[in-house]
Amino acid sequence: MFETAELGRKVSKQDYEKRVADLRFGLLRVQDELKEAKFPVILLIGGVDGAGKGETVNLLHEWMDARFLQTHAFGPPSDEEFERPAFWRFWRALPPRGRIGIFFGSWYTDPIVRRVFGQSKKAELDTALARINGFEKELVDDGALIVKFWFHLSKQAQKERLKALERHRLTRWRVTDSDWKHFKLYDKFRQVSERVLRETSTGDAPWLVIEGADHRYRSLTAGDYLLDAMTKRLADGGKSNTRAFAGRTQTKDPTTVLDRLDLSLKLEDDQYEKELERLQGRLNTLVRKMKRAGRSSIAVFEGWDAGGKGSAIRRITAALDARDYSVIPVAAPTDEEKAHPYLWRFWRHLPRAGRVTIFDRSWYGRVLVERVEQFATEPEWKRAYTEINEFEEQLHERGVVILKYWLHVDQDEQMRRFKSREKVSFKQYKITEEDFRNRKQWDAYKEAVDEMVERTSTEFAPWTLVEANDKKYARIKILKTLCDRLDAAL
Amino acid sequence: MFETAELGRKVSKQDYEKRVADLRFGLLRVQDELKEAKFPVILLIGGVDGAGKGETVNLLHEWMDARFLQTHAFGPPSDEEFERPAFWRFWRALPPRGRIGIFFGSWYTDPIVRRVFGQSKKAELDTALARINGFEKELVDDGALIVKFWFHLSKQAQKERLKALERHRLTRWRVTDSDWKHFKLYDKFRQVSERVLRETSTGDAPWLVIEGADHRYRSLTAGDYLLDAMTKRLADGGKSNTRAFAGRTQTKDPTTVLDRLDLSLKLEDDQYEKELERLQGRLNTLVRKMKRAGRSSIAVFEGWDAGGKGSAIRRITAALDARDYSVIPVAAPTDEEKAHPYLWRFWRHLPRAGRVTIFDRSWYGRVLVERVEQFATEPEWKRAYTEINEFEEQLHERGVVILKYWLHVDQDEQMRRFKSREKVSFKQYKITEEDFRNRKQWDAYKEAVDEMVERTSTEFAPWTLVEANDKKYARIKILKTLCDRLDAAL
Repeated sequence: MFETAELGRKVSKQDYEKRVADLRFGLLRVQDELKEAKFPVILLIGGVDGAGKGETVNLLHEWMDARFLQTHAFGPPSDEEFERPAFWRFWRALPPRGRIGIFFGSWYTDPIVRRVFGQSKKAELDTALARINGFEKELVDDGALIVKFWFHLSKQAQKERLKALERHRLTRWRVTDSDWKHFKLYDKFRQVSERVLRETSTGDAPWLVIEGADHRYRSLTAGDYLLDAMTKRLADGGKSNTRAFAGRTQTKDPTTVLDRLDLSLKLEDDQYEKELERLQGRLNTLVRKMKRAGRSSIAVFEGWDAGGKGSAIRRITAALDARDYSVIPVAAPTDEEKAHPYLWRFWRHLPRAGRVTIFDRSWYGRVLVERVEQFATEPEWKRAYTEINEFEEQLHERGVVILKYWLHVDQDEQMRRFKSREKVSFKQYKITEEDFRNRKQWDAYKEAVDEMVERTSTEFAPWTLVEANDKKYARIKILKTLCDRLDAAL
Repeated sequence: MFETAELGRKVSKQDYEKRVADLRFGLLRVQDELKEAKFPVILLIGGVDGAGKGETVNLLHEWMDARFLQTHAFGPPSDEEFERPAFWRFWRALPPRGRIGIFFGSWYTDPIVRRVFGQSKKAELDTALARINGFEKELVDDGALIVKFWFHLSKQAQKERLKALERHRLTRWRVTDSDWKHFKLYDKFRQVSERVLRETSTGDAPWLVIEGADHRYRSLTAGDYLLDAMTKRLADGGKSNTRAFAGRTQTKDPTTVLDRLDLSLKLEDDQYEKELERLQGRLNTLVRKMKRAGRSSIAVFEGWDAGGKGSAIRRITAALDARDYSVIPVAAPTDEEKAHPYLWRFWRHLPRAGRVTIFDRSWYGRVLVERVEQFATEPEWKRAYTEINEFEEQLHERGVVILKYWLHVDQDEQMRRFKSREKVSFKQYKITEEDFRNRKQWDAYKEAVDEMVERTSTEFAPWTLVEANDKKYARIKILKTLCDRLDAAL
């Protein structure tokens, strides 16, 4: 979930200067239009300490008309607050229609902190999140536009950031003991936050995870998103009771998780042969152990056309007894499948205990090809992230080990493979006009993959992005991660 | 919540015969139309043992074309089912578009049973309910019409029903040991069910609570509701992704909770004076105890115009120190209040700890006057039940004692009071044209009150319906219940 916010995205000073003027003008314009509109804007700021939450709030005040911008920070409850239900202070602070309210710390803070410090159980966190979802639904039903920013830093980046602040006389005061105390709990905090973001990224009020390391990148991203969300919402007349804007804006910084992969990674033949044999043997043993333990596993393969999914899958199945696995190639749904909700056809194929099921393409088609080619409507694919996470969580709870692979090649490599397929007669059936058409949508797919990873890479079902320009390297990486996860699960 | 299903509603044999032919014709017609429609109907059957769940399902099979009706009952999971996530068997059983699937026992059974038998904690139940809401949302988003029937019997009625079944040779087999075991847990079952129904009566898929004692009443009510829901849904073209029908049908049996009140109840002057003095003294002591304990209380007064709310409230405040209470008369919202979500103006007025707050009219205006006079849209007042329950639950969790009174008079008594007000000059201001207009909507208000009690009378904030034709009787009943609840809370 946080992978997309650990890419080291940066904006140069020059670029920043160029873009910020337009952004400020735009924000002032929508803020002015908002005054006449019949809905409020509720902006929630959350995230890792040191990731620029406070700076962003200050910047928004600088950029916009601060008279019509109310910011609320929430510390420990006052006497007055303590005597009322916990949500009283948030109700009090709600902005009226036509205004923007910034919640710096919000109804998310307490449930997260309590869970991180072990003061609440998992089920209690769930109860709190259900209440939050109900509350936000009430606000959205009433017409509010809710924008939720989560500022993220990798563990390393947070450490560096805190140290850098401490080094300078003028910023030293900003690093408190509690910041370092929180840092020690980074992993726990990350794990809890992931759950919270996943459960509360609803179709109507999704989180945007923003990489916080570079202040120019983070400021522009937050500003652009807010501007875009308000512009879209104002365009539908700002009528009460219309659905709020939901989803990310077209990114202006086209770096995605895929761009950080090193496609030059490769393996030599002899090393490959040796590793392959070793890993296939290990896999065979592990799968038999899993079978005895009654544990299933599911491996999902997605990737570019000609990315090598089929041949990678064959390297797995070659190691297994045919009775212990099945490969499900996912094509267009049948009539019967079309007559049911989208996920029905995948529920159908769930394996009995102790089996390996490999999906060659999967339910992720909803947020990939169906999104890009507009086979699914925008509300359909936007709510699919939640539906898919819920689906995979149920598998996980039942003890199923889930692996998800995206096989990444670049466009040159893909074209090379297309061409070579045309030459080999028995591979010709694999290449169609459609494959060439899909290439035109390369950037749109990249963006869809990026959002897919952000929304569905979870602690129980993480994505593995595979550098697949070299098929040998890819196959070994896939086999190795598969073995490691089965090993860890047993 | 179950008050509306303990009224002893009956349908005569003659009436039944007259109505059932039309109903069957209608059901066959909509079932036939459904075949061409693009959505499935999912009918959930739940409720108390012996309340006619099985009979209703059998009857629906008799009334409709059983070939296009699939009924699924769920016992303990099979081996096959046990090896998959718990929802697998429900996914498998989902009806395709154009068909009706009846779920006799469903995703609700296990969470309820586990909680009743103490195998799960409250927070775990909440987690299960959040999952259910997510699942049903997914189905509704996909276009499904979800109809949920809860068949209810009072404890006494259930006992009689089980005994009656046992008495006859032909029905004896239907009463099992587990039925009697469940009966012993009636109160716990009722309490858990209430929570479950409240949390899952969403705007898109609300529960209908059906009184199960009289088989003719129960069968017609279920049939009418199903027919109505399908008719409305088909009328909007049966298009996928339109909002499903939600809410109860216009009742064809106009008995409401109010009709069961005995308005002849009265008190003589001397008895009234004695009781009034005693109860006001008791109330004063209790409120001072509450104050010391830092506990607040909220009393909500709703009722017919000229029902005697004002004078009843004065009998409470007369017993209290002015510093310890406030009376909030609720009129039309101010501009500032209109610029916020509906409940905002009530959150504002929440008392500090240790105080008594009396609302003369309240947030229930949303589902009473705003519903009947169409000041609120149908989606607005329909989702208000959930919002109100959530609001009151938060008050309850913070230790606030909540009492809710509906003051009931009949139309004759109301007219008598209107007329006498016209004669008393200082009371003339209290009577307006509007009061006379409201009388025309009497039946619509009665139905709104009935649904309000069904949806918002909860274990933590129950409604007290007050027979108020005799003001003295009403005031004493109000003071007494108030004292009793404060006493119980301390």
